[in-house]
Amino acid sequence: MSDVNELARVEAYSDGVFAIAATLLILEIRVPSVDPHAPLAALVHELAGLWPSYLAFVISFGTILVIWVNHHGAVRLLHKTSNAFLYANGLLLLTVTFIPFPTALLARYIETDLAGVAVAVYAGSSLLTNVAFLLWFAAMQKPVYLLRKQYSRPQLRKVWMKLAAGQFVYVPAAIVSWWAPRPGLALIVAIFIFWIVMSFEDRSLI
Amino acid sequence: MSDVNELARVEAYSDGVFAIAATLLILEIRVPSVDPHAPLAALVHELAGLWPSYLAFVISFGTILVIWVNHHGAVRLLHKTSNAFLYANGLLLLTVTFIPFPTALLARYIETDLAGVAVAVYAGSSLLTNVAFLLWFAAMQKPVYLLRKQYSRPQLRKVWMKLAAGQFVYVPAAIVSWWAPRPGLALIVAIFIFWIVMSFEDRSLI
Amino acid sequence: MSDVNELARVEAYSDGVFAIAATLLILEIRVPSVDPHAPLAALVHELAGLWPSYLAFVISFGTILVIWVNHHGAVRLLHKTSNAFLYANGLLLLTVTFIPFPTALLARYIETDLAGVAVAVYAGSSLLTNVAFLLWFAAMQKPVYLLRKQYSRPQLRKVWMKLAAGQFVYVPAAIVSWWAPRPGLALIVAIFIFWIVMSFEDRSLI
Amino acid sequence: MSDVNELARVEAYSDGVFAIAATLLILEIRVPSVDPHAPLAALVHELAGLWPSYLAFVISFGTILVIWVNHHGAVRLLHKTSNAFLYANGLLLLTVTFIPFPTALLARYIETDLAGVAVAVYAGSSLLTNVAFLLWFAAMQKPVYLLRKQYSRPQLRKVWMKLAAGQFVYVPAAIVSWWAPRPGLALIVAIFIFWIVMSFEDRSLI
Repeated sequence: MSDVNELARVEAYSDGVFAIAATLLILEIRVPSVDPHAPLAALVHELAGLWPSYLAFVISFGTILVIWVNHHGAVRLLHKTSNAFLYANGLLLLTVTFIPFPTALLARYIETDLAGVAVAVYAGSSLLTNVAFLLWFAAMQKPVYLLRKQYSRPQLRKVWMKLAAGQFVYVPAAIVSWWAPRPGLALIVAIFIFWIVMSFEDRSLI
Repeated sequence: MSDVNELARVEAYSDGVFAIAATLLILEIRVPSVDPHAPLAALVHELAGLWPSYLAFVISFGTILVIWVNHHGAVRLLHKTSNAFLYANGLLLLTVTFIPFPTALLARYIETDLAGVAVAVYAGSSLLTNVAFLLWFAAMQKPVYLLRKQYSRPQLRKVWMKLAAGQFVYVPAAIVSWWAPRPGLALIVAIFIFWIVMSFEDRSLI
Repeated sequence: MSDVNELARVEAYSDGVFAIAATLLILEIRVPSVDPHAPLAALVHELAGLWPSYLAFVISFGTILVIWVNHHGAVRLLHKTSNAFLYANGLLLLTVTFIPFPTALLARYIETDLAGVAVAVYAGSSLLTNVAFLLWFAAMQKPVYLLRKQYSRPQLRKVWMKLAAGQFVYVPAAIVSWWAPRPGLALIVAIFIFWIVMSFEDRSLI
Repeated sequence: MSDVNELARVEAYSDGVFAIAATLLILEIRVPSVDPHAPLAALVHELAGLWPSYLAFVISFGTILVIWVNHHGAVRLLHKTSNAFLYANGLLLLTVTFIPFPTALLARYIETDLAGVAVAVYAGSSLLTNVAFLLWFAAMQKPVYLLRKQYSRPQLRKVWMKLAAGQFVYVPAAIVSWWAPRPGLALIVAIFIFWIVMSFEDRSLI
């Protein structure tokens, strides 16, 4: 099997995990129980009350989508794989697979007095995903250089900085959210929008 | 990686999400609990009473299948991707992933006095999916034209009209079903059959 | 996109559904609840008591695997697709996706007085899958002939007979199991083994 | 369809099952229920108490990943398939699909007096997976030789020994863990690390 096919299989497995992690999120939104003879407004009220679940679903689905778009862009830079890269990819997938858990936690506690813990855990989990993504990007370059040759050090550094921005957002977000959950959540949403915008601006490398 | 391979990866990820969303629907049909010493007829009666679950399963599975066939047809028209297209595709997948929730709601409440809300939510969710499909089709043409060149404006307009027909069905269905749930559901099934028939008639473009 | 790629996408989507339906089966085997201070033998006893779940898991996983091997063999015969074929394939996937439900029913009731209903429903569900497979095989030949040309009528007839054998087993199995569930289940296992043996014997066509 | 495409489909189906089995593991980690007006520390305490679930998740995810890396390496050695190989592959996937069940059992009972049973079942399940992997590797060589020709008997024997090492660990682990669960679990983690290290050292063959 050629290296191109090997990369294709890494992508197929990764795409499978991304697709499933994104799709499992819907299982956390449960159909509310309402007395079947209640007025229509009662069910509408219950459905509206699920807004934290809808919001958590959209944020997590969007996060996985952004990771997928970036993963997709970065794999285009490769011409072969290494075992270190395969395990770094596995670690990244592990953190992506974990996402449904903090998502469910967020949906469950965002409206309660315990919102601080839920947002902090969500920020912490996002931080782990971000660290895994940085390791994954590093494993493309060491111990074996897997990239197609045309990328200069400043170009690679620029991508690295863009990814590492997550560190400077998730750590403060985790700390802030302990006392002020909503500003913490706003930081998480902000970096998410930053990455979407960046992926439009600079498509040349990643 | 060539643009052909890039399209292949978009298809692989989309197919994964379509396949999983369709398959997760079965998790909403729960095995009924019957006293193990009851007569056989008691379990048969309970299984027959699950008909709203079977119906909702078939409608939603069919809807995802029709979207898959159309998605499959439309991607054949492309020769490259853009980031706007990738995010529009992500939005479409988000709405498809959401389908198991209104399906479970429909199965749970279709036989109760609250059927109106369940059908209205189902119609509303179908409307969102339809809007996402229209945006996705628009993102194929702007800001970058991704289609292979041989399609004329009247041809593209015809496809658009066929897709946009959903708007003229789901909005009335959502309103009607509030007072008359079954006619509302009939409208949803009708547009679903219309798209199946159309996909047979006009395979030249989509 | 060439017809070869179109077939590849049908296979990818089908493989996704097969893989997920097979994997979801494990969710029906639930960890037993035992008092944490009970003797070790108590948990062993509970785990051993789950044998109907293990058996149902293995039968259904095996069934999906046999369908996958045959699906895989049959698609090799094609050189293009039609919309009728795509919808017949969708119908086949619908019946495969349904399998976790009768599997859970079988696991739940096989040891009770209600085993007859559970086996009859399982046989009925297998019958539907078999009918869908026959329709799918027919859709390869009409209204458009999708097969690569080298297959003679007797060859195709032989495959058809092998598949249609399911009809002559599942209908009696469903009837018999009403009064005698275990012989009914034995019939279902027998046809399953027959197909595995046949797939070894005659690999030339399907 | 060429043999290369046939192998591609085996990989696609296998990757689907691996990806889903790995991702379903997260469903076993449940959001804890805490009184919404409790102090933040109460939820933190509950989340910390889920450590057996996190540990089980990481071990099982890692195990599936190691199997995937080895599967991926071994399929590279093939130039065609046989039905015996397809069924051996199916058996391997069956044991991989089963992994979420002993994982959930381990998470549930590792901290209780019943830990011995949970670790023994986990070791037993790992043993089955290992036997299936050995059968799968054997089916590559008999009754038809599917490997590309350049592999000598000593080379194949070396791979076999590396895989078969599992036998010499899982059997003692299952026995030991009955009286001493934690040393039993340590053995399972040790062979897991051994395989990761080996896959770095000897990438030439598998």
